[in-house]
Formats: sequence, structure tokens, C-alpha cells
Amino acid sequence: MMTPDFDFISPLLVAAKTRVVLLVIDGLGGLPVTAGGQTELEAANTPNLDMLAAEGLCGLHEPIGTGITPGSGPSHLALFGYDPLRYQVGRGVLSALGSGFNLQDNDVAARGNFCTLDDSGLITDRRAGRIDTNTNRELCSKLREIEVPGVELFVEPVEEYRFLFVLRGAELSASVTDSDPQQTGKEPREPDPLTAEAEHTAQLVRDFLEQAREKLASHDPANMVLLRGFSSRPSWPIFSEVFGLQPAALAGYPMYRGVAQLLGMTVLSCDDSLESKIATLKAHWEKFDFFYVHYKPTDSAGEDGDAEKKQRCIEAVDRSIPALRDLQPDVLIVTGDHSTPAVMKSHSWHPVPAILWAANCRPDEVKRFGERACLGGGLGPRFAATDLMPLALAHAGRLQKFGA
Amino acid sequence: MMTPDFDFISPLLVAAKTRVVLLVIDGLGGLPVTAGGQTELEAANTPNLDMLAAEGLCGLHEPIGTGITPGSGPSHLALFGYDPLRYQVGRGVLSALGSGFNLQDNDVAARGNFCTLDDSGLITDRRAGRIDTNTNRELCSKLREIEVPGVELFVEPVEEYRFLFVLRGAELSASVTDSDPQQTGKEPREPDPLTAEAEHTAQLVRDFLEQAREKLASHDPANMVLLRGFSSRPSWPIFSEVFGLQPAALAGYPMYRGVAQLLGMTVLSCDDSLESKIATLKAHWEKFDFFYVHYKPTDSAGEDGDAEKKQRCIEAVDRSIPALRDLQPDVLIVTGDHSTPAVMKSHSWHPVPAILWAANCRPDEVKRFGERACLGGGLGPRFAATDLMPLALAHAGRLQKFGA
Repeated sequence: MMTPDFDFISPLLVAAKTRVVLLVIDGLGGLPVTAGGQTELEAANTPNLDMLAAEGLCGLHEPIGTGITPGSGPSHLALFGYDPLRYQVGRGVLSALGSGFNLQDNDVAARGNFCTLDDSGLITDRRAGRIDTNTNRELCSKLREIEVPGVELFVEPVEEYRFLFVLRGAELSASVTDSDPQQTGKEPREPDPLTAEAEHTAQLVRDFLEQAREKLASHDPANMVLLRGFSSRPSWPIFSEVFGLQPAALAGYPMYRGVAQLLGMTVLSCDDSLESKIATLKAHWEKFDFFYVHYKPTDSAGEDGDAEKKQRCIEAVDRSIPALRDLQPDVLIVTGDHSTPAVMKSHSWHPVPAILWAANCRPDEVKRFGERACLGGGLGPRFAATDLMPLALAHAGRLQKFGA
Repeated sequence: MMTPDFDFISPLLVAAKTRVVLLVIDGLGGLPVTAGGQTELEAANTPNLDMLAAEGLCGLHEPIGTGITPGSGPSHLALFGYDPLRYQVGRGVLSALGSGFNLQDNDVAARGNFCTLDDSGLITDRRAGRIDTNTNRELCSKLREIEVPGVELFVEPVEEYRFLFVLRGAELSASVTDSDPQQTGKEPREPDPLTAEAEHTAQLVRDFLEQAREKLASHDPANMVLLRGFSSRPSWPIFSEVFGLQPAALAGYPMYRGVAQLLGMTVLSCDDSLESKIATLKAHWEKFDFFYVHYKPTDSAGEDGDAEKKQRCIEAVDRSIPALRDLQPDVLIVTGDHSTPAVMKSHSWHPVPAILWAANCRPDEVKRFGERACLGGGLGPRFAATDLMPLALAHAGRLQKFGA
């Protein structure tokens, strides 16, 4: 399936007073809960989603590629029409996005782990026995005492043994190698510059690591840190320029807010409840023409292996559909960013069910919203997630004819 | 559908103790034997394949591209996950593979035809009246008497009017043009070097052709030879490195063994019977984690236009499925390398039915293994054959998540 590049789609844009809603039910796709049985979505009672499916166009998308299990960042980029293989961010930036840190343009970020070294300096545990988040917070406070000359240092606790490391200052470069060898039984590596411009930054990172070793020496099991994925905020094409839509993001979790911010979306304040999302949508309906609405609990239930809870979460989304339709969006897309089958307790590669509803869509024969029902839909059984944005634009009357 | 390149897939590999079996039923796809009737596969009684289809994921693949009738070499490369347009071998190398010749790294091979020239040296028949294989053998013995200075010469009979031509020696190059003009009413062409390095080789080929003309002058109708497709064994990425699987090939015919060898697969000794294949699989089950099993008789029956025989061959494969499942592969793929409809007596471009079975696959609604039944399957009605390897790896738990 072709992924139209922005150079192709952007010149075709025309203005229109139409609105698009993209509702992302995180981890929506599933697997039969018992052999030969129904998936979480198939088992759920979803009269409103079924009506959307019957009136709309259905199918299943592959967010990244065939057989590829998506992370949340890349799969959202694909839903937003950005080729996830072309638009990749480093682990440091992803950590910053995920922890809600306000990363600035020239900051250099890395993902940090607390780890355990033995007496001879070899790594015995890359996760320091998975210390709890409270211990992590205390240790991060200690690390914040470190002074690195000429730059501002941020050490932000994430969960368990993970933290975010950020340097802010002049003439920094992210072209620095990991200190994390990703193996036990080895010493932490010296961070090296990959370019001449990065020599200064590599030296600052080494300074930090040396002081961190002293600060943590007496702490067991977290007596050292490992850094990896040095990266800076990428400068990507802005969503509003690429697609001619003024976008707003309604997402409760930092990771999704962060990805939306990278594309220049306005992030609206709301919590993760559907009531809050609907109220926020209503309040801002006149100010934007693209609304990304994210719903997390389905994924969390899938990760917990709780198929029944995932089913109930899907039913909760279903009940909010009438309020969403009352707003009269011109295009309403309902899908997931990836599958999270409860039986796998993790993200998976299985294609993700999708509905594209619009008054001018050509309905297919699908009458129910479910993995197997969607197989026969007009979008196909394995379409590229990046196809959704061009389809949204077309159905929103925002693309002119190609050629005379 | 995207074909992930090795640069994309290989970094995602993780180790697992899982096994994949790829069963290739040669020429599997067919056409209705009588107008409005069933295909060979649809007519066959296949309870075991039907059960696999019901439990698994079905679809039809296009080995090379839409509307393209595949040769056996490229279609197998596609099944093995290698883009057949990127990984092409010359006709000389294909001839060597097909005839079981042990082509060495710097050999230069070409496909040879015996042909007929008239008194003025113009080609009147490019196939010398399709002389029989015995005559071919006698003429090849004569051609072997030719001496070409400084190199070793091989002339190996293939079938009817075809033979394999190989030069072995130092500083050879395959960048030499064909002597076969591929038209009657013309003279054979002088082989020309395409690069400076190939001048020596082109001269050796001309020497050979001159002597061949003398040797064959009195033989009617095979009084000359034509050479085309000068080529050398390619050095391609090795299957085990690309996909992290230790592969074994179980194939009775030289062509299929040869293609497997090009990718570094271990070719196990077995004949073309299903009993031999199953016994060989069992004997080597612990030593490998990818098994390519090839079954030829379906294709031969299709080429003979014998739909009933092709149907019986498919039924024989069906009866061997329980023994295959007893081995407990984690992923079992059953498909063909191309279609060979008995009504066409040849390979064809029609998409090829496929089943991917795994405990963690998402079953679709397909309950029978047949061309039309597979149309509604989860793999889609016209998917790229190169998608099968990433899917096999995913279902075998051998690919980690892309991005965080």
C-alpha cells in the first residue's frame, strides 16, 4: 500500500469548514480469550460502535509493518499520517515525552537506569533489583545535587529503576554513545562523541557519571546509573502545515501528549475519563478542526491480562459515542494504535480494527465492530495506518482532484 | 503492503526456542477445471488442511507482483522473505542450480541452446527441432572435447535442446553479452565484454563458439549453439543471519535445493516422497529451527494438464499433515510457490492460497482451504509473499517491539 508523502498530499489541500475526530482506543485489537471463542471487542456489547460500523467503512490496519509489534510512539505517528520508519525519535526524547518533561529545542536527553555494580566495577544488575519508585525519587534528588559546569542538569524519576537525564545549555550535541553496554558482567562504557561537535557534551556526560558513581557508592543495590539513547527533540513537519487542519489533542497520559506536541498539536487539559474528554471536545469544538482523542484503559486492562475489564472499557467507550456524534463531526475515525490481547498481556503485531465514518463514505457490508467482522470491510484486512489521514482529508472535502 | 527490508527487521530479532515449518506445495493454485466448476484444490478432499485453515490465518499471495507469472527461483526467494526483484540471478546460475551443478564462487555460467543454422549462417530454429535429451547428451560429449586455453570447461546436458555452459578459472567475469539474438533469421551474435575486465572472458567464449561451430557442422538439425545469461553465483545475505533461524531444506529436485543453498540453508538428503520428508524432519527436528519442505508432484501434474492427478497429489499432502502437526511446530505455513492450473498446463500469475497456523494467530472466518475460501481470510486476497517471513517470526515470538 502506498504511503503518500507530504510532498504529494500537501499541494492538493483545499480549505473547508469540516471537522475530523480521531478516537484512539489504546490497545483495541485482541485475540480470542478462549480457544475458538471471541476477542475482547467481539464479546463486548457495542450497539453504538456497531451502528458506526454499519454506516461507515471498516478494516484492520498494520501500524508499522507486517508482523511488527508497535510501540506507542511510532504507532501514533502512523495514525497521524507520519511514516513511522521515517520519523523516529531517540529513547531519550521518548522518555522525556513519556514523563511529561517539557523538552526544549537544544536539550540533550537520555534514558537512565539505576544499576548495580560489584566491587570490581562490573554490572551485576542493569535494573538495580527493580527498586521502587519512591527509592528512585530519593536517588534522583541526590543526583540533582551534581553540578556540571556551564549547563543545566535535570534528573527526573520515571517508574521503578528508570529516570530521565537532560542537559540544557549552549552548543550541546546528542551524538554521544551509550554508557549502557546492555549486558551484565561488563563495566559501564565511557560515553564517546560521534562527531567533533559532540566532544564537549561527551565530556559533560562523563563528568556527570563520575560524580554519580561517588554519590551512589554507598547505596545498595542502586550504586550506579547507565545512560542510553542520547537524543534531541526532532524538528519535523508540523501537522497543521502538512494537512491544513488545526489539531487539538485530548490525552491524559504524558507519552501521547508528548507525541502530539512534537507535531505541533495543541494539547488540551483533560483527565483520562471519557466525560472529561467529551466536555473538553464540546468546549473547544469551534476552535479546532482536528481532534485526537486518546483512551488508555483498554490497553492497561490488556496489559494486565484482564479480558473482562478490557471488554467493559470498550463498552464504556461505546456509551460515549452518541455524545461524540451529537457534535456532528464530518469525519469520525474509531480505531486503536495497536493490539494488546489480554491473553498476551502485551502489545502485539495483530492488525487493528478501524471504522471510518462520514456522510459521504461508501458503506461496506460490515455490520458489527469486531476483528473478524472488519476483515470483509472496504479498508481491507491489513491496510497501512498512514492511509487514514489521506482518507480523513478526502472525506472531509479537503483534497482537490489530482491532475486535470 | 510494505516489505520490510532486512535493515529494518534484523535489529528487531530476539532469540526463542521456537520452530517454523514452511510447506511448499509446488504449483498449488489452480483454476476451475470446467467452466463454473471447482479448482483442483477446491475439489480435493482435504480434512486436515481444512482444519488448519479453520484454526489459522488464510489468504492468497502474489509471489512476484500483480499479474506476474513466477519462475520457481524468484517465487521461492519471495517465500523465503527475499525481495525477488532485488535478488535476481542470471539464467546461467539458474541453469546450474536446476541441473544440480556445484557452481563455485568465481565460475561463469550460461544457459545453452542447441540451434539450427542455414547455409548462410542464419538461425532457422533456436531449439534445433527440440532434439531429445539423448541426442543432447551425445552432442555435449562432443562439445566437452573443446579446449579453451587456461580455463576448465563444463558442458552439462539439461533437457531436450538445453545445456549448461560453465567456465572455471582465474580472472573470469560474467559481464559478457549473449550470443543468442532470441530471433530466427539472424546470425548468432559475437559475445562482447561489457567491462574491461570481461574482455578476456568474452574472447574465451568466442573461442569456444568457433570450435563448437566446427564440431557440430555436420550435425543436423543441431549444428550450432546459442549462449545467454552469463552470470556468477551471487553473494547474498545469509538466511540465518537475516532472520536468526537455522534453516534446513527438504527438497528432492536440484532447482529447489540450489536456491536454498544460495541462502546458506542446510540441504538435507531426502527423496521427493512425503514419507521421506516426514522421516527426515523428525530425524533433524532438534538441530534446526526453520524447515523448508518442498513437494513437487502437484506442479508436475498441473504442467501435464492432469487435474485429477493434481487433486490426488493435494490429497496425499493432506494425509501427511497430522504427522507434521505431531512434531508440534510453533508456526506452520502451507502454501505454494505459484499457481499451475491444469487447464493452462503452465505456471500462472493467479494468487496462491496460503495458511499461516500458530497458537497465537488470530483466526479468521475461513473454514476450508481453497482459492475462493481464502479470499475472505485475514492475510488478504493478494498479499506479498515476502510478508510471510516477518509474520512467521512474529508468531514464533522472535521479534521485539518497534519503538517504545
